[in-house]
Amino acid sequence: MLPTGWSTWAGEASVVSSTKPPSGTRDFLPEEIRRREYVTRVVRDVYERYGFEPLETPAFENIETLLGKYGEEGNKLIFKILRRGEHEASGEADLALRYDLTVPLARVVAQHQNDLPRLFKRYQIQPVWRADRPARGRFREFFQCDIDSMGSTSPVVEVELLSAISDVLTKLGFDDFVVRLNHRQVLTALLRSFGIPAAQHADALVALDKLDKVGPDGVAREFLERGIEPQATRACRSFFGGGATGAAVSSDWLPRVLQQIPEDGSTAELRQLVELCQEAGGGGRVRVDPSLARGLSYYTGAIMEIAVPDLAGSLGGGGRYDHLIGMFLGRDVPACGFSLGLERIIVVMTERGMFPASVVEDAVDVVVTMWNDRSRSDALALARELRQGGLRVDLYPDSDKLGRQFKHASARRVRFAVIVGDDERAQSSVSIKDLRSGEQQTVPRSDVARHLQARRS
Amino acid sequence: MLPTGWSTWAGEASVVSSTKPPSGTRDFLPEEIRRREYVTRVVRDVYERYGFEPLETPAFENIETLLGKYGEEGNKLIFKILRRGEHEASGEADLALRYDLTVPLARVVAQHQNDLPRLFKRYQIQPVWRADRPARGRFREFFQCDIDSMGSTSPVVEVELLSAISDVLTKLGFDDFVVRLNHRQVLTALLRSFGIPAAQHADALVALDKLDKVGPDGVAREFLERGIEPQATRACRSFFGGGATGAAVSSDWLPRVLQQIPEDGSTAELRQLVELCQEAGGGGRVRVDPSLARGLSYYTGAIMEIAVPDLAGSLGGGGRYDHLIGMFLGRDVPACGFSLGLERIIVVMTERGMFPASVVEDAVDVVVTMWNDRSRSDALALARELRQGGLRVDLYPDSDKLGRQFKHASARRVRFAVIVGDDERAQSSVSIKDLRSGEQQTVPRSDVARHLQARRS
Repeated sequence: MLPTGWSTWAGEASVVSSTKPPSGTRDFLPEEIRRREYVTRVVRDVYERYGFEPLETPAFENIETLLGKYGEEGNKLIFKILRRGEHEASGEADLALRYDLTVPLARVVAQHQNDLPRLFKRYQIQPVWRADRPARGRFREFFQCDIDSMGSTSPVVEVELLSAISDVLTKLGFDDFVVRLNHRQVLTALLRSFGIPAAQHADALVALDKLDKVGPDGVAREFLERGIEPQATRACRSFFGGGATGAAVSSDWLPRVLQQIPEDGSTAELRQLVELCQEAGGGGRVRVDPSLARGLSYYTGAIMEIAVPDLAGSLGGGGRYDHLIGMFLGRDVPACGFSLGLERIIVVMTERGMFPASVVEDAVDVVVTMWNDRSRSDALALARELRQGGLRVDLYPDSDKLGRQFKHASARRVRFAVIVGDDERAQSSVSIKDLRSGEQQTVPRSDVARHLQARRS
Repeated sequence: MLPTGWSTWAGEASVVSSTKPPSGTRDFLPEEIRRREYVTRVVRDVYERYGFEPLETPAFENIETLLGKYGEEGNKLIFKILRRGEHEASGEADLALRYDLTVPLARVVAQHQNDLPRLFKRYQIQPVWRADRPARGRFREFFQCDIDSMGSTSPVVEVELLSAISDVLTKLGFDDFVVRLNHRQVLTALLRSFGIPAAQHADALVALDKLDKVGPDGVAREFLERGIEPQATRACRSFFGGGATGAAVSSDWLPRVLQQIPEDGSTAELRQLVELCQEAGGGGRVRVDPSLARGLSYYTGAIMEIAVPDLAGSLGGGGRYDHLIGMFLGRDVPACGFSLGLERIIVVMTERGMFPASVVEDAVDVVVTMWNDRSRSDALALARELRQGGLRVDLYPDSDKLGRQFKHASARRVRFAVIVGDDERAQSSVSIKDLRSGEQQTVPRSDVARHLQARRS
């Protein structure tokens, strides 16, 4: 709310209609950043322990890099950047904001093929942007924490990814997550068995991906709207309709699937994955779920998603995409990846109170107060000494009343304030006030840093 | 270079013309990221030691938040985002990518005024985007490392900022940087004294800002092109013409300036700043330079810039901007900030060989090899054990020939490979190969982690 007639400045006119961040985005104040950094620190440590190396890409890509990679829904949600200079008036876009971290990775692998090992494992923790309708826990700018392995078709790759993701969640304190696992080709075979022609599979996957949100009737309705035959829709509705998500189908998934489709390479791959997960010691959380679709169109093999009971949607997901790099490189490179959603992890951890208290602890050890304007250089020098002694020091810049300076320190949850008044200066000493207890003591100036360090711990 | 006729996939047509990142942007491969993280770690540690708290803002802002804040040159270089959905065809932009970290901060301070302390000190390390002509060391996406203090007009604020910046550079190993210091109002008074009317000051500042690049004759030419009177141009040329940058004017700045303009509050402020810097013990590097202009139009008081001999342009700059927050809040909040340019720091450090060797050391401690396909679950379990033992482990996913697996490990500069062949499995043991020395030894499986940890250090 700006008063009318407020002054503009430097001769430039400006109308600021709102100080809110754009719809679907957020400002991160210090406490929130500390929470985010706590989570990304754990993510990074685990990813590195699994041998993944860091990679980053630009926020925007040439627009043709992104278009046509995400399927129908994705294409619509891409933020496009207007051409510049003389071309601005054309209204055309030549760049677009990163929609995920996978397509940029595929481009990078093609571009840097000579600098990267044949087996390349990278992690990437960066924001992506989607012009989705903002909702609780759904933002237009959000961070993904991705790991991807390139160069191998071995199921060991999938198992390692799931193991790393499980380690991350376990270290963060999650003990009730479930890994939903499916295979794109098994799903495709099922769709075929229902009588859905290949040309309509993309439509069917987009609709089926909403099973969790809209239920089997909602999916069936969308099937019909998208022109899928009523008979095929009924067959699909009957197969997936029995509340067949997650745990319900975990134990008997294979017999049910094999009643519907013949055993082939993809069902064998799925079976092998489950077995390997179990043998390698991380399989207890894996549930095969033949209805899991995943929205993105580039998956070609195993697909997976992490679910927790108190969150609609997933904490993250991934899968194998053996042809995406080929779209950039001209020859296929097998690849498989997983993406954790930072925001959703933080939402659940915050609601459940999973953050250790230390995460949002004091950011500052001591405030150096300002006695009067003549003591500025002395206060600056004292602050410098204390910082050299390893302390985090805030220097109060104005010679306000001491009470006001203490209040500022307390509001920032700083425990100690130091005062160099005229008496202290005459004696080369410093008074230390404990703002929690109210105690105050005077120590020789040369001892202040040591003194505060001792009391801090 | 894609072969003609390469296959598209999933029925979607796609033409990928280039796998390069967009003009002026870069992909960051692992080694480069490690260098960047080394620098940002130092920056962050020093900023926190000075009592600054972390803050982050969205990549884009509502377009009216940015327009009209950066002056003539800035406005042209803003990346604009096309409206979405039904409005896309209008060719209009409603959002724009962050051009610096200062204007978003001013918006945040206005938006969150009730959640932030009156004296607020924040740091922010994020990318910004400018549609500048790309050149060596000049990118369209680059990172700024900002500190800003809000709420005080005390010169202690400027001195603390400069002290923090100096500490960062010193910790990174810079020993030859110079802090160029000026005051916008002193500069304005000088322009007035040359006979340049206030309406042309913005033009004059834009031109003067290029003194380092184009020299005094180039500046004079631009003055004339911008319609500044020949006589005023000559006066300015004569004052700044004598190679008067940086060190040359440092000792005699005040007499020269006071020959030209009367002493007033702004000259007094500048003098006080220099004195405080000297008294507080960090003044040795400060040089007053009356020609320093700074490109951005929002500065109102002290302005400063860091120069090193082997870099055209600066490592960073900043200044006081007491009216910018008022543009969002409706009432002024005094503020002062400094921004370090991450890319330029890294360019200079790389060229000078200033990075410690440890920054790009081994990312992985050991590669677990894959004996054959039947040993997958055993290899997975071994990798898991070693990771639990604190090691960074890469698991080779395919049962390729061992020589190939060793080669992969060596190429990634991994020192150790472990092998569980049929013999080892029979004896519950593991062979450890040192890929540097070629030595191989067999140890009980339960001892592997301990063994590797001991040899790693």
